[in-house]
Amino acid sequence: MTFSVTILGSNSAIPVHGRHPSAQVINIHDQLFLVDCGEGTQMRMNEFKIRRSRIHQIFISHLHGDHYFGLIGLINSYHLLKRQEPLHIYAPAGMQEIIEVQLKNSRTEIAYELLFHTIDASTNKKIFENDIVEVYTIPMNHRIECCGFFFREKKGLRKLLPEKLQQHEIPQAYYNALKQGDDYIKKDGSIIKNDELTLAPQPSHTYACCSDTLFNEQIIPIISGADLLYHETTFMNDSAARAVITFHSTTLQAAEIAKKANVKKLLIGHFSAKYESLQPVLEEAQQVFKETVLAEEGKTFSVENA
Amino acid sequence: MTFSVTILGSNSAIPVHGRHPSAQVINIHDQLFLVDCGEGTQMRMNEFKIRRSRIHQIFISHLHGDHYFGLIGLINSYHLLKRQEPLHIYAPAGMQEIIEVQLKNSRTEIAYELLFHTIDASTNKKIFENDIVEVYTIPMNHRIECCGFFFREKKGLRKLLPEKLQQHEIPQAYYNALKQGDDYIKKDGSIIKNDELTLAPQPSHTYACCSDTLFNEQIIPIISGADLLYHETTFMNDSAARAVITFHSTTLQAAEIAKKANVKKLLIGHFSAKYESLQPVLEEAQQVFKETVLAEEGKTFSVENA
Repeated sequence: MTFSVTILGSNSAIPVHGRHPSAQVINIHDQLFLVDCGEGTQMRMNEFKIRRSRIHQIFISHLHGDHYFGLIGLINSYHLLKRQEPLHIYAPAGMQEIIEVQLKNSRTEIAYELLFHTIDASTNKKIFENDIVEVYTIPMNHRIECCGFFFREKKGLRKLLPEKLQQHEIPQAYYNALKQGDDYIKKDGSIIKNDELTLAPQPSHTYACCSDTLFNEQIIPIISGADLLYHETTFMNDSAARAVITFHSTTLQAAEIAKKANVKKLLIGHFSAKYESLQPVLEEAQQVFKETVLAEEGKTFSVENA
Repeated sequence: MTFSVTILGSNSAIPVHGRHPSAQVINIHDQLFLVDCGEGTQMRMNEFKIRRSRIHQIFISHLHGDHYFGLIGLINSYHLLKRQEPLHIYAPAGMQEIIEVQLKNSRTEIAYELLFHTIDASTNKKIFENDIVEVYTIPMNHRIECCGFFFREKKGLRKLLPEKLQQHEIPQAYYNALKQGDDYIKKDGSIIKNDELTLAPQPSHTYACCSDTLFNEQIIPIISGADLLYHETTFMNDSAARAVITFHSTTLQAAEIAKKANVKKLLIGHFSAKYESLQPVLEEAQQVFKETVLAEEGKTFSVENA
């Protein structure tokens, strides 16, 4: 079952060096979720052949433009392309006003259902759940209200063992209950424990997506043990003072968080325009956390095999 | 003296086939003017090496997103890049509200002077003038308030004839007045006519930029004799009915306007996403007006030698 992250934009606020503002697509069992939507995200979707019709939820971390300026264009294109299904936008307060003032001025009535969910970015709270995933906010420490997003894949159903089912002559009507973990009670009242009849499901995987934030150890318990952590690294260590002023993180700080949270892999992005080459950025982070990779645009990173 | 148009975006509403929404840069004597600013315009400026600091006036034809979604990103990048000079935005009512609601929500205070000029798109009126150019609105017939822009290069100064100046012993203090067209009055009261002492300036060139509009012959007197006419051609002739419904023009209609307005050259753009190849679009327009060219992105078209 797929669980992966595709990077559409990896730069911080100014698009340059062929890099674009923040956007990434999370693929969980072929359902797509968009996190952030910087200017030009819909063009990157064309370029990287993202099946945009599979996106039903968009999560916006905060209302700095490099994280949402592309949203109105995507919403508008869905409308022109005659989207039918509802689209859910999860964002801090203000997003709805920004979109609606633009629709009003162009006299556009979006033909599909466009639903805004205002999130409280200051708490760690479940904001979305369906049959395959739960999504939680992760409070960030930034200049304006901002949160990361924690994706927890739901455990699948237990796997039936056909030969055991036959041996105990268990009627098919009970199979669903067994998959859910129930024991089987025979007619004589005796019990066959579930783990005699089924195998445990695949372990659940987790992805923590953290942008933008000042170095903040308070997120560690929330993201602890994640298979993959995306953490912003706007600056290298020699700009640590600038990182503080602008409420961003450095390579070494992101790596420190990854190490203390004991994640499997660290994905770094949101690079400052000052870095044309990213190799030194990568190498600096790897000094602290070896399993670090660059969030290069167009690349897909596996969460299940991180 | 340069007078040219560089195309940054040539498509209609949906960006596809590697084409982008509307934007073009007018270069008049190395002063740059931006007309429309679709999503990703700032990235196209990077790609085509447009010296964005030379832009002081931006003209927005109307508030459909494919003509302005990139404006907030450009305004924001100017801010981050520490622009000092004022930036003037000429647009129909609503533009200021759209930009300001976004600046408010990101708590951004633009550090340079950002000035909005609300234009009445329903009239043919001068909206801007400086030492080299006058800009007029051209009323379009579209679903919402919309105008084109007519750029009239100002005539330069008359050219002094040094041998004549010497012959008549004219003091240097009078040269500026002669360049402006004044006659010279000698001490004895006799007059030397200006055209004995100077040559006429280069002729003034004109560029008419018309997007988006239903076929509308009322614009012909306004754009008559333009060196270069940009006219939208969203559709080919077989979609003429669709053009009417959506308030757009076809190839044949744009060419008809060019012919009747007796312009030197026609530049066609704002292509529907349905046309992957543009060669048939070009050929159809050329059936009516031979001097037609495609508004291909990255290409620069001369107005003075149209």
